[in-house]
Amino acid sequence: MSTRIAVLASGRGSNLEALASHVERRAAGMATVVLAASDRADAGALDVARAHGIAAAALDMGPDHARALGALLATHRIDLVVLAGYLRLVPPDVVRAWRGRIVNVHPALLPAFGGPGMYGARVHRAVLAAGARVSGVTVHFVDEVYDRGATIAQWPVPVRDDDTPAALAARVLRVEHLLLPRAVLALARGDVRLADDGRALWMPRATTATAAFLLRDTDDDDLARSIDAALGA
Amino acid sequence: MSTRIAVLASGRGSNLEALASHVERRAAGMATVVLAASDRADAGALDVARAHGIAAAALDMGPDHARALGALLATHRIDLVVLAGYLRLVPPDVVRAWRGRIVNVHPALLPAFGGPGMYGARVHRAVLAAGARVSGVTVHFVDEVYDRGATIAQWPVPVRDDDTPAALAARVLRVEHLLLPRAVLALARGDVRLADDGRALWMPRATTATAAFLLRDTDDDDLARSIDAALGA
Repeated sequence: MSTRIAVLASGRGSNLEALASHVERRAAGMATVVLAASDRADAGALDVARAHGIAAAALDMGPDHARALGALLATHRIDLVVLAGYLRLVPPDVVRAWRGRIVNVHPALLPAFGGPGMYGARVHRAVLAAGARVSGVTVHFVDEVYDRGATIAQWPVPVRDDDTPAALAARVLRVEHLLLPRAVLALARGDVRLADDGRALWMPRATTATAAFLLRDTDDDDLARSIDAALGA
Repeated sequence: MSTRIAVLASGRGSNLEALASHVERRAAGMATVVLAASDRADAGALDVARAHGIAAAALDMGPDHARALGALLATHRIDLVVLAGYLRLVPPDVVRAWRGRIVNVHPALLPAFGGPGMYGARVHRAVLAAGARVSGVTVHFVDEVYDRGATIAQWPVPVRDDDTPAALAARVLRVEHLLLPRAVLALARGDVRLADDGRALWMPRATTATAAFLLRDTDDDDLARSIDAALGA
């Protein structure tokens, strides 16, 4: 059985592009992106969907929105919902119905720099205002509270002294494009699932999320050289 | 002029050991650790100090503590104060007098997992309870509020699925031992300072703190392989 994936996006759809391309290349038969929906009829994400032969739907954001979205997902027999730069609150009925099968990508290391109003450039402005030297990407299960659901995977991204919100956003986005598809396929494969205790549970055969970036530094000398280079020592 | 460094520590002094050894090896003449002080007369840190020929002082934590600590630092003509696992609040008078010349190492990526009561194993328990996949180390200037001062340097550390607070603490501590000495010497060299706006300002000749760990991943394929390895793809 192929996992049927829907993507909700409000923007130009670069994460949809990354996910659709990755799934086509790496998961043929095991998972398919079958639907992209947007709260904005002119979102680039819908063009990206059409270019990949994926059904594209502009959502009616009127009072009947929650029921209509649920019906749309049901009609397409969606197993897995991916929020990729989706700026609207997903109706609680939809979150409940797809509990453990709905994920979001956030452009920072939650629990830092998340919550209501923290999206897009606002996240990166807050990171820079706080003087943080490490930001990153979080893929997490969606629950009823913004940015609160269990973390599936995180990856760090360095902040530079001369960063602007736009420069940091671009560096973070590059990692979103790499991390989100891999986290989604891990979920589709069953390597990770939402456990009864509300945590993301990885199967033993899957190695730990976010491990490799330091594993390469096999000894202290090697890691010390990295830090020396970073601090200009 | 050699920068005269004091270390305040409550524990066994592994960060003091790392700092003293690094300074002896790499900063001969430019900086010297001349004093270690502890709120606990039996702290291992004081033994570490003695082994390095560093003056070791047990602090009297009575009502006259703030004045006595200030006098001790003044007597030793201390330029730079390093809190390395120091569990007491540094008196506001001392913080003010050494403003921009007093730093702390925190075993997580602030602003996440900091604040009152967040020290030692409590930090790592909170990280694991939150399901975070990336933790790290922060070196920051100390101001009047716990864990709030400007960030000087941060470094990420991966969290593993099977982590215990002790296992995570050990992985983080290894990075503390590497990052803290380098951040302290950057401060001693004048590569970084506390700017008037309350931010840590790095000199242009020093490359950005926390940059190298991803620079090694020069192309997307390389970074993607790291993420694949981490997510078991």
